[in-house]
Amino acid sequence: MRTVTYGAACSLDGFIARPDGGVEWLIWSKDVQEVMREYWKTIDTIVMGRKTYEVARSSGSGAYPGMKNYVCSHTLQPGGEPGVEVVAQDAVPFLRNLKHQSGRGICLMGGGELAQSLLEADLIDEIRLNIHPVILGSGIPLLRPVSHAVSLELYSHRLMEGGCLLANYRVRRNGGARSRSSNSRRAKTADR
Amino acid sequence: MRTVTYGAACSLDGFIARPDGGVEWLIWSKDVQEVMREYWKTIDTIVMGRKTYEVARSSGSGAYPGMKNYVCSHTLQPGGEPGVEVVAQDAVPFLRNLKHQSGRGICLMGGGELAQSLLEADLIDEIRLNIHPVILGSGIPLLRPVSHAVSLELYSHRLMEGGCLLANYRVRRNGGARSRSSNSRRAKTADR
Repeated sequence: MRTVTYGAACSLDGFIARPDGGVEWLIWSKDVQEVMREYWKTIDTIVMGRKTYEVARSSGSGAYPGMKNYVCSHTLQPGGEPGVEVVAQDAVPFLRNLKHQSGRGICLMGGGELAQSLLEADLIDEIRLNIHPVILGSGIPLLRPVSHAVSLELYSHRLMEGGCLLANYRVRRNGGARSRSSNSRRAKTADR
Repeated sequence: MRTVTYGAACSLDGFIARPDGGVEWLIWSKDVQEVMREYWKTIDTIVMGRKTYEVARSSGSGAYPGMKNYVCSHTLQPGGEPGVEVVAQDAVPFLRNLKHQSGRGICLMGGGELAQSLLEADLIDEIRLNIHPVILGSGIPLLRPVSHAVSLELYSHRLMEGGCLLANYRVRRNGGARSRSSNSRRAKTADR
C-alpha cells in the first residue's frame, strides 16, 4: 500500500498562507531544499486541490516535472490542463484506489480542504510540517475541523534554518487519541 | 521589565482542550514535571482568564501556592475568591502596569481570549508550547485571530516523552514577520 503524506509549511498558529494567499513569510533555506530533495526521491505522485493547483499554475505550469500530477476538481475541464490529470470524481474513492496501485509514495500538496476530507476518510498516513516561527493572526488553515481525533506518532524532527521546526508524524491506527500507553517511547531525533 | 510568558500544551491543530474542555489527551510525563519545575523558579505571578480559573477551581482551590494569583474577570466578585485577586479592570492596562513592577516573571495561564488581547497589545514576551502528537479536530483554540503578524524567535526546543515537542519562542520586536534576514541563525537546541 502506498504512503500518502500531507506536507506543508505552516505558521505557529496553523496557517499555510495569509488570507490573501501570501506566503512571503516562508523561509526557503538550504535545509528546506535538502529535506525536499530527500523526500522527493520517495514519491512519484502529487495530488492537489484546485486552489493549490491554481496558485502553482500562476507561477509556472502547475505540474511538477517527473511526477504524476493529479488535480481534484469538479470545475476544471478534464484534459484541459497540460501536464496534470484532472480528477472529477470524489477525492476519497480516487485516493483509496490510487493507494492500492503499485508505485512510490503520494504527496498531498497544500490545501486544507482536500486534507480534511482525506483525514476524515483515514487515507493520510503521514503528516510532515515545517513549523515557522511566526503567528500570522489569520489566513488559510493547515487543518480544518475533523469529526474525530487523529492520534499521531512523532517519528522524527529537526531544527531548520531560521528557527523552523520540521516535525514528521505517522498516523496511528491502532487506537484513538486516548491510547497513550504505547506512545510513551521517545521519538527518533533527527536533529543535527 | 518583567517577562510575560504564554505557555500551554496544545494539539497539533492548535487546541488546548476538546470542545467540552476535555484534556485527557494531555501527556503528564516526568519531562513535563521537570520543565515545569524549572520554569516555576523563574516566575512569581500567575494571570488567568475567568474560564481557566474556573477549570482550575473545579479541581482544587484554583490558586497556585507560592504565587501571586490574578484572575481577569468582569463577572467574578472582587474579594470573593480565596487565594486569588480578581482583576475587574481591563487586562491590558493591568498587565502593562504589572510588567513595570518589580518581581520575577509572569505566567499567562491557558485561555486563548486573554492571550489574544495581550498579543494584540504586544504585552507577551515569550510563548512556550508543548505540542502534542494528536489532531483533536475541534476544541478550544490556543491562539485566536490577531490583527497583525507576530514574528518569533525559537530559542530552544526539546523532545518530550510521548512524542511531544516543547518549543520556546521569544516575541521579536525589532521587525515584523517579514524581517527574516536576522532570523537565519540557528536556534539553540536543547534536545537530549
